[in-house]
Amino acid sequence: MCELLGMSCNTPTDLTFSFTGFSSRGGRTGPHSDGWGLAFFEGRASRVFLDPNPCSDSPLAAFLRAHPIKTEVAVAHIRKRTQGPIGLANTHPFWREMWGRSWVFAHNGTLLGIESLELDRYTPIGETDSERAFCWMLGQIFREFPADPGPEHLFAAIARLGSELSEHGVFNFLLSNGDYLFARCDTKLHHILRKAPFGQATLADEDVAVDFAQVTTPHDQVAVVATTPLTRDEQWRKGEPGELWVFQRGELVAELASPVRHGKEDHV
Amino acid sequence: MCELLGMSCNTPTDLTFSFTGFSSRGGRTGPHSDGWGLAFFEGRASRVFLDPNPCSDSPLAAFLRAHPIKTEVAVAHIRKRTQGPIGLANTHPFWREMWGRSWVFAHNGTLLGIESLELDRYTPIGETDSERAFCWMLGQIFREFPADPGPEHLFAAIARLGSELSEHGVFNFLLSNGDYLFARCDTKLHHILRKAPFGQATLADEDVAVDFAQVTTPHDQVAVVATTPLTRDEQWRKGEPGELWVFQRGELVAELASPVRHGKEDHV
Repeated sequence: MCELLGMSCNTPTDLTFSFTGFSSRGGRTGPHSDGWGLAFFEGRASRVFLDPNPCSDSPLAAFLRAHPIKTEVAVAHIRKRTQGPIGLANTHPFWREMWGRSWVFAHNGTLLGIESLELDRYTPIGETDSERAFCWMLGQIFREFPADPGPEHLFAAIARLGSELSEHGVFNFLLSNGDYLFARCDTKLHHILRKAPFGQATLADEDVAVDFAQVTTPHDQVAVVATTPLTRDEQWRKGEPGELWVFQRGELVAELASPVRHGKEDHV
Repeated sequence: MCELLGMSCNTPTDLTFSFTGFSSRGGRTGPHSDGWGLAFFEGRASRVFLDPNPCSDSPLAAFLRAHPIKTEVAVAHIRKRTQGPIGLANTHPFWREMWGRSWVFAHNGTLLGIESLELDRYTPIGETDSERAFCWMLGQIFREFPADPGPEHLFAAIARLGSELSEHGVFNFLLSNGDYLFARCDTKLHHILRKAPFGQATLADEDVAVDFAQVTTPHDQVAVVATTPLTRDEQWRKGEPGELWVFQRGELVAELASPVRHGKEDHV
């Protein structure tokens, strides 16, 4: 299994604190040592840093911790491979363009038998079930909506397609177009909304604490999503199976539920 | 105007030496301080490092010089903007997926009036003429060839589309799918083929020399393409207007000529 980390903010914010705890799990406090990636959005565009090496001792990850990039939306992933060998082509997050925007995707879980789903417009470069699922979802969305249909239809389509794919296995994911951050919980996902009055937080994986009041303004709002809570002294909300959260500018703007078959937790 | 740097090799090779000279031109020995980017291929996949800040004093560029990434194909660009503001969405190289491969593109020159060209399948994220030209070219190729048509048809299509776009202004470019590196000269482009017996070379922009014999094997072949020669003591071949070079695994595997109207050099 892999781990996911996402952030949505109303002010460009750096991910350093969360990424520090998260990257420890990539080979040090966690077993996810088969590559990692981190995407930062700037408006409709993104840049994606990919590294097929373990995150915990990656010079590139150390560089990103030391030279924080402020962003409105970030999507990160550390990989414990299940399908597809270690390599750049199989490293999340994956990236495609749709409607003149960058779309970025990262997956936690394993999907079986999705080779039979017909692809349209987007073709995988690597061998993972995850990239194939992403390509299929975007292709389905574009086939139904050649132009952006607005939030209501878009949210419903992503919830429905997520639910369909989830029939093939475990499908926790993060998906963003730089405006919305979609976070689907299938078996395991948590989020926290931080806003004024800000307090202090301590990482679960490192002896690092931050006083958010010192590094924010009262206007700031930040949503952080992670497979498991990154801090030990804050209240993270646990996702329900089949739940799709939609964040925009640091706020939870929509929650969609879809039915999930039982007994999945056993397979994570 | 911008500057281009490309490399094609038969063995994964690091770009450090060339990138050191090249990145000096991004704000120090050259005026190209409006962002830079560097794409590395690993098979069909690529990772693209983008930075909207000047290359010469960019911490990310320093990191990449200090932590070389070995690659079979690299495409780099430093920007002196003409169309589109400074920002991530307007930073080369641009990236799209076609036929399950990553395609990367960087442009030197300015194209006027290409908004009227009808796009198909690929949509620009930013505001540059360059990304629009790239999207149009890929869209045209995909419309004619929904699957890879093989080298002969592919090379001819890229030469023809390059020539069509070149009617709109100046269109020097680098394009790669990780297998081939296409380098089109409209007004200014140079290349060098390095193979055994290897000699010494000294950068034109920095007091840095390398003895390639010390860092290569007799089997190695490397092609380097740049807007202007990066070394002062090697023979670089100057491109003719309208010439398209195709490199594969460090060799020049094809050269295609197309007619170009005269007097362009005045506008570079």
